Amino acid sequence: MAAEPVLLIMDFPARPPGGEEQARALRALAESIAQEPGLIWKIWTRHEAEGRSGGIYLFESLPAAQAYHAMHAARLSAQGIGPIEATYRFVNGPLTAITRGPVPPSD
Amino acid sequence: MAAEPVLLIMDFPARPPGGEEQARALRALAESIAQEPGLIWKIWTRHEAEGRSGGIYLFESLPAAQAYHAMHAARLSAQGIGPIEATYRFVNGPLTAITRGPVPPSD
Repeated sequence: MAAEPVLLIMDFPARPPGGEEQARALRALAESIAQEPGLIWKIWTRHEAEGRSGGIYLFESLPAAQAYHAMHAARLSAQGIGPIEATYRFVNGPLTAITRGPVPPSD
Repeated sequence: MAAEPVLLIMDFPARPPGGEEQARALRALAESIAQEPGLIWKIWTRHEAEGRSGGIYLFESLPAAQAYHAMHAARLSAQGIGPIEATYRFVNGPLTAITRGPVPPSD
């Protein structure tokens, strides 16, 4: 059976606002995340009024999402960020296609 | 100021499995949702083991997302579906572009 794409939704307390140094570090982090195995895309999320940051990820498979989740949660925790909420969801492909959802067709 | 795109994440207990009639109704619902004002895309989500269904939506603006949310929550409640969780998140555009996130550039 072909791997099924999976969404990983991560959400956690926002970092305190930083300056250009933080912005540079986040761009470097994004360049690294773009190379993660099995990552199709990541949307970076924020909600200033709720003090939240996070991401919505689409991975090619559940194992790829789980491996990234474990690595990224440990990386955030090491920076003192948490607690980290993570939710996995699968995709209804035919309905998503009707509503222009940006999920490539499965193999 | 140009409108800012916003993500709406809705999540609720899954409908009991239905047959071809339910599948037809959901396709018709998807065709309708595809026409909603301000909707850029919707990904239909599910997690059978957790008994959850939902959607991740990208709207052109917060008012468009809020109007849809109110209408759709009332529609689901009328079908006996709930409680409905809804979360709003904004997008970090520059970082999302680096990680191939499917969010059109803002005006």
